[in-house]
Amino acid sequence: MGGDLGPQPSLEAALVCLDLFPRLQLLWVGPDKQLASLLSQVDSQQQHLLSRLTIIAADEVVELSDDMLVALRQKQDSSMGIALQQVAEGSADACVSCGNSAALMAMSRQMLECLPGFDRPAFASHVPTLNEPCLIVDMGANIAPSAEQLLQFGVAGQHLEQALMPCKDINVGLLNIAAESGKGQPEVQQAHELLQQADLDYYGYIEPHDVFKGKVGVLVCDGYAGNIMIKTAEGVSHMLSAAMQANLIAQDGDQGLMAPVSEQFDPRKLNGAFLLGLQQLVVKSHSYADSTALVAAISSAVRYLEQAFTEHLAEAATE
Amino acid sequence: MGGDLGPQPSLEAALVCLDLFPRLQLLWVGPDKQLASLLSQVDSQQQHLLSRLTIIAADEVVELSDDMLVALRQKQDSSMGIALQQVAEGSADACVSCGNSAALMAMSRQMLECLPGFDRPAFASHVPTLNEPCLIVDMGANIAPSAEQLLQFGVAGQHLEQALMPCKDINVGLLNIAAESGKGQPEVQQAHELLQQADLDYYGYIEPHDVFKGKVGVLVCDGYAGNIMIKTAEGVSHMLSAAMQANLIAQDGDQGLMAPVSEQFDPRKLNGAFLLGLQQLVVKSHSYADSTALVAAISSAVRYLEQAFTEHLAEAATE
Repeated sequence: MGGDLGPQPSLEAALVCLDLFPRLQLLWVGPDKQLASLLSQVDSQQQHLLSRLTIIAADEVVELSDDMLVALRQKQDSSMGIALQQVAEGSADACVSCGNSAALMAMSRQMLECLPGFDRPAFASHVPTLNEPCLIVDMGANIAPSAEQLLQFGVAGQHLEQALMPCKDINVGLLNIAAESGKGQPEVQQAHELLQQADLDYYGYIEPHDVFKGKVGVLVCDGYAGNIMIKTAEGVSHMLSAAMQANLIAQDGDQGLMAPVSEQFDPRKLNGAFLLGLQQLVVKSHSYADSTALVAAISSAVRYLEQAFTEHLAEAATE
Repeated sequence: MGGDLGPQPSLEAALVCLDLFPRLQLLWVGPDKQLASLLSQVDSQQQHLLSRLTIIAADEVVELSDDMLVALRQKQDSSMGIALQQVAEGSADACVSCGNSAALMAMSRQMLECLPGFDRPAFASHVPTLNEPCLIVDMGANIAPSAEQLLQFGVAGQHLEQALMPCKDINVGLLNIAAESGKGQPEVQQAHELLQQADLDYYGYIEPHDVFKGKVGVLVCDGYAGNIMIKTAEGVSHMLSAAMQANLIAQDGDQGLMAPVSEQFDPRKLNGAFLLGLQQLVVKSHSYADSTALVAAISSAVRYLEQAFTEHLAEAATE
């Protein structure tokens, strides 16, 4: 129920998204009295949006510090557990959570269905590049995956992207610290062999700087590297945006001049990774997400649903 | 002898640096006939710089694809081996190489001296942040270091930075994928315990996005994460610089307006990591470095020498 910043940003994000997507129905899972009190403060112009927002009571919370096993065994009635339950029962099409990643992953696996042949889901999300956005799989769910898991990430990611963009050729790269063979983690080297034999357009090893040139449509990586990569991208984007603004002020330039770039590369807009490998849609937001970042996470869920995401995934799994 | 782009960019960089640093003497190690032929094409205005550039003949090359052991056993007479030999003999104060990282590391350890108590050197370099630059240790020399090695990186990095900037308080952070305890690679978690007990200003775990806010002066990380991080930072900087320029053109803005930002965050200026843990100075450049990136690598070597880098390191080791 909200991240580090409490429920207020999640209400703000909910209102923005309800306005943005007229068919969106939101279930807001958390401590009902607190949420109802926040709703009572919504201004009159936005009151009409609240007809599509339903509060579902959940007083327990999975803490960021909670062990995954504690969450699994003792916190079925937490906001996270109840939100996933809505998806399991078909009362919701997707779950968006700012909560503990390991717990979200474990509870999703327990309460929802994995795609056939999938060992463990991965966190996947698009990053901007100089070319088309690139789908990164995995961004942190599996910090030490096997070569076979890395292969699964590549196959599922490629199928999904290809289904979402049937007119484009989607190629798959494998993240490594060197482009040459024989370097990097043993599992990554083994995955390289497997991907070479797989039935997909395999680019080969790719180093991080080349990912942002847009050389691949899907980037396969272990969750440790993927997590470092996405958080570095956020940090550098934030730093450069701040430097651009400071420079505009120093040079007495038009402060709106760089707005399109700041807008396009706002790191908060990267927020929202989905669990690739489930039959349903679960989107993970950063715990430190503000309302802009939460809008990005909820919007990504809506857009995936509009693109028949889960149907495409199911097709990919049966091919 | 030069990186992927051959010796031409290294000659261009040499001329820029000889002009920039009037006391610099450069030894240029590589195939002498080819180098001499390039020198003969230097224009007359730059001819005077050549009195401080000496060619040292080396016809053999350590290839990027060479195994480290092949380099160690069979390539002592390569350009890399001979360049390091100059440092070992005291004929040069530092070696700058675009070559095979693993071979450079292995040959440096064989031919030069490690600091007392140091198991294996790390690649270290500064990255810009919103605050002061941060020294990252390790950027790729040790992809699976022990907790003790990570502790060594922190202690040596902090001593060095403190010596170079005696008026500042230098704190040390440990890169992790989460700020909470109990998450991340086991070695990183063990290093966290060791760093908490060490005699230094330990910040604790830090995630990549916070590194670029400038929260720590020294960032300790395993070489795998450090390599992913630095190459992601390069890729994102490059992408954003290109987007800034495209936006200025689209909006018919002054194309020089963002020059200070492009200049400050030009990813090529990040080029040049030194081997922290040696008693002498060895700087590694990217293999794909162009002349601007090579100027950055050579300049960093000159500046470290001007700051009595090796003397500070030796003091740090004996404390």
